Amino acid sequence: MKVVSVKTGRPYDILIERHILDRAGEYIRPLTKAIRAVIVSDSNVAPLYADRVAKSLQNSGFATSLFVFRAGERSKRLAAVEQMYLHFLKHDLTRTDIVVALGGGVTGDMAGFAAATYLRGIDFVQIPTSLLAQVDSSVGGKTAVDLPAGKNLVGAFWQPIRVLIDPAVLKTLPDKFFRDGLGEVIKYGCIRSKALFERLERENAADWIDEVIYECVSIKRDVVEQDERDMGERAILNFGHTFGHALEKLHNYSGLTHGEAVAAGAAIITRISERNGITAQGTAKRLEQLLQKYGLPIDAEFPLTDILPAVRGDKKSTGRQVRFIFLKEIGDCLIQAIPVEEFRTFFGEHHF
Amino acid sequence: MKVVSVKTGRPYDILIERHILDRAGEYIRPLTKAIRAVIVSDSNVAPLYADRVAKSLQNSGFATSLFVFRAGERSKRLAAVEQMYLHFLKHDLTRTDIVVALGGGVTGDMAGFAAATYLRGIDFVQIPTSLLAQVDSSVGGKTAVDLPAGKNLVGAFWQPIRVLIDPAVLKTLPDKFFRDGLGEVIKYGCIRSKALFERLERENAADWIDEVIYECVSIKRDVVEQDERDMGERAILNFGHTFGHALEKLHNYSGLTHGEAVAAGAAIITRISERNGITAQGTAKRLEQLLQKYGLPIDAEFPLTDILPAVRGDKKSTGRQVRFIFLKEIGDCLIQAIPVEEFRTFFGEHHF
Repeated sequence: MKVVSVKTGRPYDILIERHILDRAGEYIRPLTKAIRAVIVSDSNVAPLYADRVAKSLQNSGFATSLFVFRAGERSKRLAAVEQMYLHFLKHDLTRTDIVVALGGGVTGDMAGFAAATYLRGIDFVQIPTSLLAQVDSSVGGKTAVDLPAGKNLVGAFWQPIRVLIDPAVLKTLPDKFFRDGLGEVIKYGCIRSKALFERLERENAADWIDEVIYECVSIKRDVVEQDERDMGERAILNFGHTFGHALEKLHNYSGLTHGEAVAAGAAIITRISERNGITAQGTAKRLEQLLQKYGLPIDAEFPLTDILPAVRGDKKSTGRQVRFIFLKEIGDCLIQAIPVEEFRTFFGEHHF
Repeated sequence: MKVVSVKTGRPYDILIERHILDRAGEYIRPLTKAIRAVIVSDSNVAPLYADRVAKSLQNSGFATSLFVFRAGERSKRLAAVEQMYLHFLKHDLTRTDIVVALGGGVTGDMAGFAAATYLRGIDFVQIPTSLLAQVDSSVGGKTAVDLPAGKNLVGAFWQPIRVLIDPAVLKTLPDKFFRDGLGEVIKYGCIRSKALFERLERENAADWIDEVIYECVSIKRDVVEQDERDMGERAILNFGHTFGHALEKLHNYSGLTHGEAVAAGAAIITRISERNGITAQGTAKRLEQLLQKYGLPIDAEFPLTDILPAVRGDKKSTGRQVRFIFLKEIGDCLIQAIPVEEFRTFFGEHHF
C-alpha cells in the first residue's frame, strides 16, 4: 500500500492499494464512531462495486444504505443533492455518521457537497473509481454542483476523512474514460514534473498506472497544502482548464470528456503562449505529441472566435481580467492575469 | 461604538452603533477589494432600510444590487437560495465580491448559506435588523436552510467578515418580534450570566437595549470561540431549544415565534430538571416570573405526550440519546445526554 498524507485544515490520508474496495470498512472504522454509512454511487458504478464496499463496511460494524443516481454530469444539480438529503434523513443519518462517495468525479463532487452541507457538515470518504477522480477530483476537498449557467458554480471546500484508491477498478473503465484521466495526468507532468512527463513519453502509462496515480496525487497534495482554498498557487492546477471549460460549455457538456477538453485547452494555450514568448520554443510541439500518443485531442472543433467569449465568461475571471496558467517549459508554469482589453493583442486581432 | 471581536477560524468584529446602517460602506470597505455587493433582504425589511444601506455602500465605491425574497420562514428553502445564485450570476458576482445580509434570522441564515456555497464561498456581512438576529443568529457563523422534514437541516459554518448592529432599527419592530428576541436574551442570562438575568428582573430591557445586545453578543462570542463547529460546549446555547424546536414543529412554524418557543421550552425543561433534582429549587419559578414579565409563554399548548415524540426526532439526537441543557441554577448550566429508554423515568411515566 502507498500512502499520501494531506496536511490541510483537517488532515487526511490517501491510501492506494489494489482491491482496497474489499477492505474499505477496516480502513474507515478507526477514523469514526459512525453507526450508519450511506454509500452514494451512480447507475454505472453501483452495480459493479457497491455490494463489495457495503459488505466490507458491514463487516466493520456499519449499518449501510445505498443512494444511486443516474450516471452523468446532468445529474450534478441541486435537485439531486436534495434527493440525497431526503435519503440521509430517511435513514436517520446523524452528525456523527458518514457518507461514502463511490464513483467518478460527479459522484465525489455531489456526495461531497451533500456531506459538507447536511446538518452543516458530516464526515465523508472518497472511493474514486475513475482515473480522473483518482488522480484529481477526489483529492483537495473541492465539492460542487452545477447550475444551468455553468459547471461547479455552487459548492464548498470540504476535506474527506480518507481517500481509498483501488487501481484494480480501472480495468473496467472504457478506453474513453481512461484517456479522460490521462488528460489530467499529463497536466501534472506539464506544471510540476518533467520526470513524470518524460516517463509518459517513454513508456505506456497503463503499464505503471499505480505509480502514475501516486505521482499525480502527490503533486496535487503539495499544491493543495499550500493553498487549500484556491486563493493563489492552487490555480496552477487549472492549466488547460480555462480553455477546457469553455470547450466543454461549447460542446454542451457532452461529446467531449473533461480530460479531452483539458488536453485540447492545454495544447491551444501553449501554442499561444509560445507565440507570445512566454513558453520555451518547442514545448507546444512536444506536448502535442504526448497528447496524441494517448489519443487525446490537440485542437478544438471551434475557432478561437467562438472560444474567447466563453473564456471571458469563465467563473475564474476576477473583475475585468482572466487568469491563465502558462508553461514556462515542461514541468514549470506561471500564473498570469490578462486584462480583457489586451485579449486582441494577446490572442491575435483576427479572432475578434 | 462598541466592538466585540470574535476569534474563530476566520476572526471578525461585531460593531454595535446606533445608525450604523448609514455607515455600512465605510465599515466594510477596509475589509474587502470587492467591486460588487449584493444586498439580500426580505419584503418587510427591504422597503425600510435597503436604500440607506445601498447608498452607504455606493458612497464607499461598491456597485450594489438588491435581492428581495418574500418575508417568512417558509422562504428559507433551497429553491430561494437557487434564485439567489441566479441573481449573483446575473450581476456578475465574483469570488472577491460580497453579499450583505440585511434583515432577521431567516435572511442571515439564507444569505449566509448562499455566500458559503456560491463559487465555493464568498465573503459576507451580517446587518441584523431584528433583536433575535442581533443577539443570536448573526453571531457564530451558522448558516442554514430548511427541508420539508425540518428546520436548518442543510447549512454550513461560514463566518461573516463583519457584523454591523444598529440598535436604532429595533424601534420599527412590532412588539411580538421584540419579545421574540427577549426569549433568547433571557436564555443568555440563564446559561451564563446571573448579573444579566437579575438586571432583566430589576429593570426594563427596552431601556438599556444597547447594553443588552452587547452583553448577549459577548456571551455568545465566548461560547462560539470555544467550539466553533458545535461539537460540544456550544450546545449550551440550545438551552430551551430542544423542546422549543419540538413546539415550533407542532405549531407548523407559525403562530409561535422562535423566541416564544424557546421561552416555553426553557420553562418546561427547568420545571422537569428541578423535579429531577438537577436544578436548584426555586429556579423554575424565578424563570417563569421573568418570562412572564416580558410577555413570554411559560407553557406549551400541547401536552408532553405530544411533545416528547417530536423531541426524540430532533436532529440533535445522537444515536439513541437526546442531549439536553439543564440549569444548575440561574447563570450556570450543564449538558446531559438522556438515553431514549430513560425518557419514561425522567419525564414521568404518565406522559407515555
